Amino acid sequence: MRIDAISVIPQVFEGYVGASILGRARTRQIFEFCAHDLRDWTHDRHRTVDDAPFGGGQGMLMKPEPIYEAVEAVTAFDERRPHVIFFSPCGTPFSQAEAQRLAGEERLLFVCGRYEGMDERAYELADSVISLGDYVLTGGELAALAVTDAVVRLLPGALGDEMSARDESFSDGLLEYAQYTRPATFRDMEVPQVLLSGDHAAVDAWRRESSLRRTALLRPDLLDSADLSETERRFVYDIMSHEHPEGEV
Amino acid sequence: MRIDAISVIPQVFEGYVGASILGRARTRQIFEFCAHDLRDWTHDRHRTVDDAPFGGGQGMLMKPEPIYEAVEAVTAFDERRPHVIFFSPCGTPFSQAEAQRLAGEERLLFVCGRYEGMDERAYELADSVISLGDYVLTGGELAALAVTDAVVRLLPGALGDEMSARDESFSDGLLEYAQYTRPATFRDMEVPQVLLSGDHAAVDAWRRESSLRRTALLRPDLLDSADLSETERRFVYDIMSHEHPEGEV
Repeated sequence: MRIDAISVIPQVFEGYVGASILGRARTRQIFEFCAHDLRDWTHDRHRTVDDAPFGGGQGMLMKPEPIYEAVEAVTAFDERRPHVIFFSPCGTPFSQAEAQRLAGEERLLFVCGRYEGMDERAYELADSVISLGDYVLTGGELAALAVTDAVVRLLPGALGDEMSARDESFSDGLLEYAQYTRPATFRDMEVPQVLLSGDHAAVDAWRRESSLRRTALLRPDLLDSADLSETERRFVYDIMSHEHPEGEV
Repeated sequence: MRIDAISVIPQVFEGYVGASILGRARTRQIFEFCAHDLRDWTHDRHRTVDDAPFGGGQGMLMKPEPIYEAVEAVTAFDERRPHVIFFSPCGTPFSQAEAQRLAGEERLLFVCGRYEGMDERAYELADSVISLGDYVLTGGELAALAVTDAVVRLLPGALGDEMSARDESFSDGLLEYAQYTRPATFRDMEVPQVLLSGDHAAVDAWRRESSLRRTALLRPDLLDSADLSETERRFVYDIMSHEHPEGEV
């Protein structure tokens, strides 16, 4: 997969993309990442990318011209047509399902805004407008990194043998179960006995119940679309009618 | 505000925290940011921070001991007690309201997990467990940066005179209105005439309607908690019953 990002601060990507799991995936050529300076597509001495909003108001907006020129130029850097992604709190909330869909693309192109926002006409270039969540960031760069991270870790070989993207939150529509490692007793807190039992069926049952309980108490909104048996539906209904979210999950 | 982050890849923060708006805010001493290497609180030759999960399964979990030692040590680096934040898809979804709340804290301490997750007992240290959204990242570092970004930009003086955190998405429970800058005509796309009219009342009315229309079509879930007049409620109800999300917003 090829990923390009257009930004006025293109230097901020490398520190994260070059480190840890992404860094290793890039070294193994599972993906390539190229950051581009939006100001390379301006034509004035001050390399201006912003202007005052029509209709008045505080703050500066990103002008449409450099964005169009940049997207067209970067698109032409490779023969594969990119899936072009803009970021905005007005976009579609990003989800694990969307990460999975994007992991099937050959090429992604991120356009990262800054300042008060972007001329509305720039969004005509977008195949997707993504919102990372219901909060406001200073720019699209962290959103581009988060989408890169969520997508690349799903590419074959990216996590290596020692990790897995299967048995985790959202992989079955539920939150992940509680996990424990050594020591069995730590500062008077015990690991649940069943996990030490060696009884695989009992462990699996405990984990499923832990997932169901956490989802029911912390994120009941996820249950509607989760694939539950009739017994499991009754179990979560019982939890939701009798337990308080502050209880043990 | 003082912000500390504990991570096994503490070098990834500086590139973002030192740049652009955050970089300037830090230079102006609006906040300070210190990243710490979790491995500094291990005691074996290999500086081990992870271990296999009890009950079996793929992947490695973060051990509780170094996390407890690190949080206790970093807490003691300053006399202000930090608000301790962990990240997990099982956490509370991050929101602009939470960013505003955290902007009132004197000190934040982020604990960033990696690998398959963290021993459940580590979360006992958390004042808040935050989820950036319903997707899985390789670690908590990007979440820590996103929360830092969303919080610091709300601190007095961080955005400078040229920007504003008032008139934006979620500031009134709605998505932000569409914005335009020069040129008035760009590639056959025109700026709405009213924005060129100089009629401030008409501009304000158009912007409010744009906010309402976008929220109604793109994120009707936000309307429940938005503060709307009776006329506005009827307006969004009309939009939702007659217009299709693919229409102009």
